[in-house]
Amino acid sequence: MQKKKEIKILSNNNPIGIFDSGFGGLTVMSAINKVLPSENLIYFGDTAHVPYGTKSQNAILKFSKEIVSFLIKNRVKLIVVACNTASALALPVLEKSLKVPIIGVIAPGARAAIDASKNFRIGIIGTEGTIGSKSYPKAINKLAKAKIYQQACPLLVPLVEEGWIDEEITDRTVKKYIKPLLAKKIDTLVLGCTHYPLLRKTLERNLDKNIILVDSAISTALEVKRILDKKSLLASKNGKKYLKFYVSDNPEKFKKIGRRFFSKNITTIKKIDLVG
Amino acid sequence: MQKKKEIKILSNNNPIGIFDSGFGGLTVMSAINKVLPSENLIYFGDTAHVPYGTKSQNAILKFSKEIVSFLIKNRVKLIVVACNTASALALPVLEKSLKVPIIGVIAPGARAAIDASKNFRIGIIGTEGTIGSKSYPKAINKLAKAKIYQQACPLLVPLVEEGWIDEEITDRTVKKYIKPLLAKKIDTLVLGCTHYPLLRKTLERNLDKNIILVDSAISTALEVKRILDKKSLLASKNGKKYLKFYVSDNPEKFKKIGRRFFSKNITTIKKIDLVG
Repeated sequence: MQKKKEIKILSNNNPIGIFDSGFGGLTVMSAINKVLPSENLIYFGDTAHVPYGTKSQNAILKFSKEIVSFLIKNRVKLIVVACNTASALALPVLEKSLKVPIIGVIAPGARAAIDASKNFRIGIIGTEGTIGSKSYPKAINKLAKAKIYQQACPLLVPLVEEGWIDEEITDRTVKKYIKPLLAKKIDTLVLGCTHYPLLRKTLERNLDKNIILVDSAISTALEVKRILDKKSLLASKNGKKYLKFYVSDNPEKFKKIGRRFFSKNITTIKKIDLVG
Repeated sequence: MQKKKEIKILSNNNPIGIFDSGFGGLTVMSAINKVLPSENLIYFGDTAHVPYGTKSQNAILKFSKEIVSFLIKNRVKLIVVACNTASALALPVLEKSLKVPIIGVIAPGARAAIDASKNFRIGIIGTEGTIGSKSYPKAINKLAKAKIYQQACPLLVPLVEEGWIDEEITDRTVKKYIKPLLAKKIDTLVLGCTHYPLLRKTLERNLDKNIILVDSAISTALEVKRILDKKSLLASKNGKKYLKFYVSDNPEKFKKIGRRFFSKNITTIKKIDLVG
């Protein structure tokens, strides 16, 4: 009975909901938009609470629950937690209580890392929250035995948000953070934060050439496709397509900075006050 | 009638309430504690919403109103907005509706800058919110005619919170931010963010020796003393003294990082969920 009801509620033309603490998740939305160009997409950026990376699990869980309620009200057929910190700290609780499928970026990232690595010595960079949760080591070790070396990089998000992508200061900061990982002879580095793909060139400049950079965006998008396909919930190719954006603060700023993260123009954007 | 009631509510042993988005305001609390060692002090750090500097006026006003309600419930006799961003964006609204005196850090900082400057060419560094509000130029120009040059420095708060006080990266970042101000031949630089006093040495290393650094902490503390004295509300010297700390997230982290900002150990600390 329950299952029947669920199928009735979720239809192919319902949107996919995507959320993040701010702009970073737009790199994941971009990938979903490329892999699944017929899907309607709703994005929520929790710009009133950004950044998540330095906050407690209780706080991240509270914020995430409020956003998920908002997305459910907007009749999403699947939710993507497009934030590593929330994937690490809130997803394990959220996935227990929801009727719609919900996925994070960590399991897809872990799978991509295992696919890429040859020597099974893998480095992870992320926020304090993501690194502290040990979610990547746990997810990777479920798939294969590997040596995992982690490094929290709290300054990389502010540097990206300041737009200092090609500054020497950013190169020096990246160098300082990744030095201990290089000493461990890693052959794969996971960009464990959705802001970091914007620093891909900076990272490449400062890493040995043989090290493969893994970001979860594409593998997350492929996972979304696989789930919707399995549930026969992929959108029809002929429907009217929309991309909607919501934030909890400062829509003007989101529109401006969002351009760096999202390949298309951000037009429809609304501010929503979360309850609680 | 109203006035009589007010006097009855506020007594000398009631605490002073101090708030900030996070740790930075502890530099102001330290100064108040030095200037007024007999006062009871309550500090609120809004660590669930930190940082304020990049958020909108609406958001800052909402957060500040909730904190002020909490402080009023705790029977404070005076409130100090120990955050430049909230002083710039929320204080003008808050001071219209409150019965207890409320002061920010900008007016005292402006006064200190005018006292320090000889050539009346003054530089201001602060968060995006503080700089965008033009609160310092307005406050300074109320007191005297001066040339004001502003620079937003969004990376300095994350650098302080990462503890990179004596790193070359921080020196380079500071240099990059203050270069345009030095070109304007300023003789005074206002540290328009309560995190910046921790970068005093870094700033001194990178400024001409004749430039005076002004931070609002001491001048704010002296203003608190002046107001309480005028209202005959200074605490008696023999009372039992307390310092209480509240945060909206992560009390453990506050205790740890707070040590850098506050001269005494932070012992009594509680997490409070703000409504709304």
